[in-house]
Amino acid sequence: MTHNVAILGASGYTGAELVRLIATHPSMKIVGLSGNSKAGMAMADVFPHLRHLDLPALTTIEDMDFDGVDLVFCALPHATSQAVIKELPRHLKIVDLSADFRLRDGADYEKWYGKPHAALEMQKEAVYGLTEFYREEIAGARLVAGTGCNAATGQYALRPLIAAGVIDLDDIIIDLLAAVSGAGRSLKENLLHAELSEGAHAYSAGGTHRHLGEFDQEFSKVAGRPVQVQFTPHLIPANRGILATVYVKGEAEEVHRTLAEAYADEPFLIVLPMGQHPSIKHIRASNFCHIGVVKDRIAGRCQIIATLDNLTKGSSGQALQNANLMLGLPETEGLMLAPVFP
Amino acid sequence: MTHNVAILGASGYTGAELVRLIATHPSMKIVGLSGNSKAGMAMADVFPHLRHLDLPALTTIEDMDFDGVDLVFCALPHATSQAVIKELPRHLKIVDLSADFRLRDGADYEKWYGKPHAALEMQKEAVYGLTEFYREEIAGARLVAGTGCNAATGQYALRPLIAAGVIDLDDIIIDLLAAVSGAGRSLKENLLHAELSEGAHAYSAGGTHRHLGEFDQEFSKVAGRPVQVQFTPHLIPANRGILATVYVKGEAEEVHRTLAEAYADEPFLIVLPMGQHPSIKHIRASNFCHIGVVKDRIAGRCQIIATLDNLTKGSSGQALQNANLMLGLPETEGLMLAPVFP
Amino acid sequence: MTHNVAILGASGYTGAELVRLIATHPSMKIVGLSGNSKAGMAMADVFPHLRHLDLPALTTIEDMDFDGVDLVFCALPHATSQAVIKELPRHLKIVDLSADFRLRDGADYEKWYGKPHAALEMQKEAVYGLTEFYREEIAGARLVAGTGCNAATGQYALRPLIAAGVIDLDDIIIDLLAAVSGAGRSLKENLLHAELSEGAHAYSAGGTHRHLGEFDQEFSKVAGRPVQVQFTPHLIPANRGILATVYVKGEAEEVHRTLAEAYADEPFLIVLPMGQHPSIKHIRASNFCHIGVVKDRIAGRCQIIATLDNLTKGSSGQALQNANLMLGLPETEGLMLAPVFP
Amino acid sequence: MTHNVAILGASGYTGAELVRLIATHPSMKIVGLSGNSKAGMAMADVFPHLRHLDLPALTTIEDMDFDGVDLVFCALPHATSQAVIKELPRHLKIVDLSADFRLRDGADYEKWYGKPHAALEMQKEAVYGLTEFYREEIAGARLVAGTGCNAATGQYALRPLIAAGVIDLDDIIIDLLAAVSGAGRSLKENLLHAELSEGAHAYSAGGTHRHLGEFDQEFSKVAGRPVQVQFTPHLIPANRGILATVYVKGEAEEVHRTLAEAYADEPFLIVLPMGQHPSIKHIRASNFCHIGVVKDRIAGRCQIIATLDNLTKGSSGQALQNANLMLGLPETEGLMLAPVFP
Repeated sequence: MTHNVAILGASGYTGAELVRLIATHPSMKIVGLSGNSKAGMAMADVFPHLRHLDLPALTTIEDMDFDGVDLVFCALPHATSQAVIKELPRHLKIVDLSADFRLRDGADYEKWYGKPHAALEMQKEAVYGLTEFYREEIAGARLVAGTGCNAATGQYALRPLIAAGVIDLDDIIIDLLAAVSGAGRSLKENLLHAELSEGAHAYSAGGTHRHLGEFDQEFSKVAGRPVQVQFTPHLIPANRGILATVYVKGEAEEVHRTLAEAYADEPFLIVLPMGQHPSIKHIRASNFCHIGVVKDRIAGRCQIIATLDNLTKGSSGQALQNANLMLGLPETEGLMLAPVFP
Repeated sequence: MTHNVAILGASGYTGAELVRLIATHPSMKIVGLSGNSKAGMAMADVFPHLRHLDLPALTTIEDMDFDGVDLVFCALPHATSQAVIKELPRHLKIVDLSADFRLRDGADYEKWYGKPHAALEMQKEAVYGLTEFYREEIAGARLVAGTGCNAATGQYALRPLIAAGVIDLDDIIIDLLAAVSGAGRSLKENLLHAELSEGAHAYSAGGTHRHLGEFDQEFSKVAGRPVQVQFTPHLIPANRGILATVYVKGEAEEVHRTLAEAYADEPFLIVLPMGQHPSIKHIRASNFCHIGVVKDRIAGRCQIIATLDNLTKGSSGQALQNANLMLGLPETEGLMLAPVFP
Repeated sequence: MTHNVAILGASGYTGAELVRLIATHPSMKIVGLSGNSKAGMAMADVFPHLRHLDLPALTTIEDMDFDGVDLVFCALPHATSQAVIKELPRHLKIVDLSADFRLRDGADYEKWYGKPHAALEMQKEAVYGLTEFYREEIAGARLVAGTGCNAATGQYALRPLIAAGVIDLDDIIIDLLAAVSGAGRSLKENLLHAELSEGAHAYSAGGTHRHLGEFDQEFSKVAGRPVQVQFTPHLIPANRGILATVYVKGEAEEVHRTLAEAYADEPFLIVLPMGQHPSIKHIRASNFCHIGVVKDRIAGRCQIIATLDNLTKGSSGQALQNANLMLGLPETEGLMLAPVFP
Repeated sequence: MTHNVAILGASGYTGAELVRLIATHPSMKIVGLSGNSKAGMAMADVFPHLRHLDLPALTTIEDMDFDGVDLVFCALPHATSQAVIKELPRHLKIVDLSADFRLRDGADYEKWYGKPHAALEMQKEAVYGLTEFYREEIAGARLVAGTGCNAATGQYALRPLIAAGVIDLDDIIIDLLAAVSGAGRSLKENLLHAELSEGAHAYSAGGTHRHLGEFDQEFSKVAGRPVQVQFTPHLIPANRGILATVYVKGEAEEVHRTLAEAYADEPFLIVLPMGQHPSIKHIRASNFCHIGVVKDRIAGRCQIIATLDNLTKGSSGQALQNANLMLGLPETEGLMLAPVFP
C-alpha cells in the first residue's frame, strides 16, 4: 500500500534530502511540494539532481491540497513551522524537522529561541523524534518533532551512559565538528566557499548553541536530575557530516559495554570494537551512526566518538524513520542505502 | 530469483562502489570478494562504510570458490585482469571493469598500454560495455568490457552526432574535468590531499591519454572512416565526477535535437533543454548522465557538456547495468538511486 | 620615499589582497580605506587575517581625505567605479580594478555591461592595465584600468602568437578553470560551500562572458583585423587560481619559441620547457604566471596552458605592479613573494 | 650582511616552506639544498612553485659543502635527523625541525619514539625552540630543536595559565583540528584526497600522540610538578592550519587577562578581545598565532581557542624566527608576511 506524503519547505537541503530518500522508498509517494519563495517552479529547476524524477511542481502552502495526503514532512524554518503546523488539517500526521516542537517547556523555547512559542497547545502532543528512545510514542503520535542534528549525535553517545550511571554527570564535554550543510541553504558570508574552504573555526561557543536546550531537557530527564554539558561546535570545510568527540569520566570498558549492549539490536546505531573510532567519511549520505570508545591514558577517563550525516540520520533520514513508524511501515524501509565512499 | 555474484579486486574504489550498489539490489547477492593484498581481512576493516553489511571476508582469487556463482565483476588493474579472466571457469558470466578487453585490435592495445595482450582469443568474445549502444550484444555476452569513465562521457556526448553526420569530424575537442577517484586508491604523490586540494592541472595532455584508444575505435566505427579527436583531461579537487566540454562545428539546434531524439527513451541519459548545461554536483553517486548543448556566439559552432559520476555511470554502475542485462534482469534494477546533493 | 595610497572598496577580496601585498611593500603606506557598507568598522573586524596591521578604519568615500594621497586603488563594483572615479580629485593617480575602463569603445561597454557608460571622457585617458604589453603608457598614465582576471590569462597565452602570426586566427578556443574568489564576496547561492565543493560546471558558456569584450578588443588590435575566440569558463571548487587551456592550430615548437622569446625578460611570466604544463597549485598567492605548450597528436595543433592567481596577478598584484610603474618605483617591488604551497 | 644557510631535507613540505620564506628574507641566502632521494634534481622539478628562484640543485648530504655555511636547517625525519646532526661540522649553527632533540630525557624519547636516542650527548646542548619562552637560550644556542606543531599550539594557549596558577592542572583537555600537511608528503592511503576530502576523524586518540611527550615535559616544568593533559587531534580536510580548543577550569576573565598580559609585546602572538575566537583561515601561510578566550555557561569554566599555521609558526616560520635570533638578526625579519585570505 502506498502512502501519500507532502513536503513543506522542499526548496531547502532537508527537503531535497527527503525527496532523495523517498524516491526509492517502496511505500511512499510524494504528492505535494511547497516552497513559498519558489512556488511555480519545477523541482528540476530548484534541484537539478532530482531531474530524473516525476515530481509535483512547487506550490505555496496555501495552494496545497491536503485531501488524500497521509503525512506531511515540515522542513520549514523554526517559528514559521509552528505557525504553519497550527493550521494544518487534523487528519494529517506530521513530522516536523524544525526546532519548534523539540522543547517541551515553553520557557525553554523562549530562552533558546528568543521569542514566545505560538502553538504551545500543539507542543503538548508533540513527541521528541529521537527514534531509538521514543519508538513507541512515535508510532502512536500525530506530531513528531525531529531532533537537532548535533543534539542527535550527542545523545547517541551519551544517553545510555547517563541512564546507566557509569559516567560523572558534572564533567561532560561535547566537542563537535559540523559540516556546512547543517547551516542550510542560507545566504550568509561565512557559508561562502571562499570563506569556509581551507578554514575551520568554533561557533556558538561557550554554551550558547541552541541544541543545548535539547541536551539539557533530555539528559536531565534521563538522569532524573539537572545535567548540564559543555558543548563547542566547530564548522569544518565539508558538506555533510557531524563528528562528536565526547570527553567523560568513567571506565572505558564499562562505557563501551554499556553502549554496545544498548544498541545491540539497533539497525542504524553501530558501536565499533573497543578502541576503534569512526570517520565522517564512512557514514556519508546514509542513515547510519558509528560510535567508538577510546580509553584515555589518564585512568578513569575516556572519549566517545560518534558520527552521523546531519542531513540523513540527523534530519531527513530520521524524519523518514519516524514516518515509517507512524504509518505502520517497517522502520528501516527505504533507509538501508549504504554510505557513499569516497 | 537471486543471482550469486563475486567481485574480484574488491579492495579498490570500483569494488567498493559495486558493493554499495549491490547492497540494495533486490536480485543479487554477493557471495565472494577477493583482494589479494588484503586477503583475510573483513570488508569492514578495508572499507568501514560497509560495516553494516553482512559480507564475505576478502580472499585471494585462488581461494575463491566459483561454484554456484553466476557472474563475476572483475575490478582488477589492467594486465592483471586479462591474466585472471583467462583462467576463470567457463560457466561464469564476467563484467570486466579494467581496460583489458575494450580495444578489439591487439595492436591498438599494445600501442596504448605498452605491452602485448595476453588473452587475445578472449578479446574476440568480449563486448564493449557502453550499454546504450551495445544493449543486445551485452544481453547475450559472456564477457563484457566496461568502458573507460572518460571514454563513456565523451561518447555519450558525441556518438549520435557522428552517426547522424551533423558535426565536422575533423575538428572535435573534448576538454574534460575529472575528479580524483578516477585514479583509484593508488599511493601517488599527486593524489595526496595536500597536492590536489586547491589545485587543478591538465594531465596526459596532447593526445596521450589511453582512453583515446577507445575514442578512436568507437568514433571511427560509427563514422565508417577514421576519426581522431583532441582530448585534454584535467584533474580537479573533487572526489567523484567527470564533466566534459566538447567543442564541435555544427548547428546547435540540430545537435541538440539529435541528442534529445537519440536518448529520448534512455532511463539514465538525460538531455537538458536547449541552452542549459549540467554540473558534476547534480549526478554525484548516481547512474545518471546529464547532457546539455550550448550555442556558441560564432555561427555554426556549439558545445556539448556532459557529466557523469566516474565511479557509478562511468564504472561500477555501468557494470551493474550490464550485469542486469546479462542476467535477464530489468536493466535499471538497483540503479535508480537519486544523486546525493549537496 | 614612501608613497601614500588609499583603497576604495577595501571590504572585498581584491581590496583585502591589496592590503596583504602592500603590508610588506617597502615604499607604500596605506592612509585611507573605504567600504561604504562597512564604514566605521576596523579592518580587523572585516578581515581578521589583517589584525596584526596598523590600518586606518573603514570610512565612506565621501568622508575620505585625499589630501596627501598619491595614488588610489579603486576596488569597487563596475558602474559604481565610473561614478566614483569621475569625482575624484585630479591630483590622484588611479588604478581601477573594475571593468569600467577596460573597453575603449563606449558601444562595446554598453554591449557587454548592459548600460551606457557614464564617464566616457575619462575612458579616453585610461590605459589598459596588462602591464607587460602597455608598460610605457602605464608609467605615464593617470588612470589605469586593470584587466579582467580571465582576460589576463588568455592574453598571456595568446598575444605573442597573434602578433607573430603563428596560429590560425579563426580557430582559437580558450577553455578555462576559475576558482571561486573570482566571483567576489557576493552572497549568491551558487557560491555557497555546499553548492560548490565537490562540484564543477561551466558558466557564461557559449560566448557570453564579459571578458570576451577584452579579448575581442585586444586580439583584434594585435592582429590588425577582427578576431573572435571561443571561451568557456568553468567554476571549480578552489578558492584562488585560473588555469586556461587554449586550443590553437599552429606548430607547437614555433608556438613555444614565440612565447619563450616574448617573455624571456619578464620577471613574472615564466614559460616552462616545451611539453611541460603548469598547475594552479604552483602560482597560488603570487604574482607569477606559468605558461606551458603541449604538442597535440594531430599534426599542426597544440595547446597552450597558462595559470595565474586571479586575486594576485589577475587583479591586485597586477594593480600593484602598475602602481609601481606609475609612481616611478621598481616594477617588481613588493611582488616577489613566492607562491604558497601546499 | 648576508648569512649563508643550507636546508637538509629540502624535498619535504617544511623544506619547501623554508625556501618560500627565505626567498624574501633580506639577510639570508640559500647556498645548499639536500634531498637524498631526489639528489641531482632541480628544486623547480621537485617544487614547481619555486621555479622563479635561483636555487642550488638538490644534493645528497654527503656531497654538500658546509664551508662558508653559517646555519643549517635540518628538515629530516626523526631518527634520521639525530644521525645526520651528530656528524655535522661543529662550526654550524643548527635548527632542527624534527622531533629528535625536543625531549630532554632520553627515556622520554624512547617511550614516545620507540627506540633509544643515538645522540644523547647532543641532546644536552639542544634548546627547545618555542621562541617566546626560550628566547635568550635560543639566541646563544648552537642547536635548537623546533617544537611539534600541535605542541606549539597547545603551549601558546596554556603556558602562561599554568605558570600563573589560574587553572586547574588536573583537568585540561586539548581538542585539536589539524590540517593534512602536518603529516608531511608521505604516501599513505589516509592522506589521499579521495580519503580525506569531505571527511574528518580523530587520530592518535586516547593520549597516544607523540606531542604529548612535549606537553608533559614543558607543562610539568612550568608547573613545578607533574602535569598530564588529555589530547585528541582530529584530521580535517584542509591543507594548512591547526586550531586547538582547550577546555580548562578557571575564571574566563582571569584567563584572558593572563594571556593578554603575557603576550602584550609579542609580535606574532595575538590575543583577541574577550569572547572572540579565531579561525584557521585567518593565519594561513603566516607566522601569526591568534588566541581567543570564551567563557562557558558553566561557572568557573572556559575555553581557550588558538590557531596557527602548522607549516609556518608551527614549523618553518618558527625555525626561521629562531635562526634570526641565533644569527643576531631582528627576530621578525622576513616573517611579517600577512596571512593569505581567502
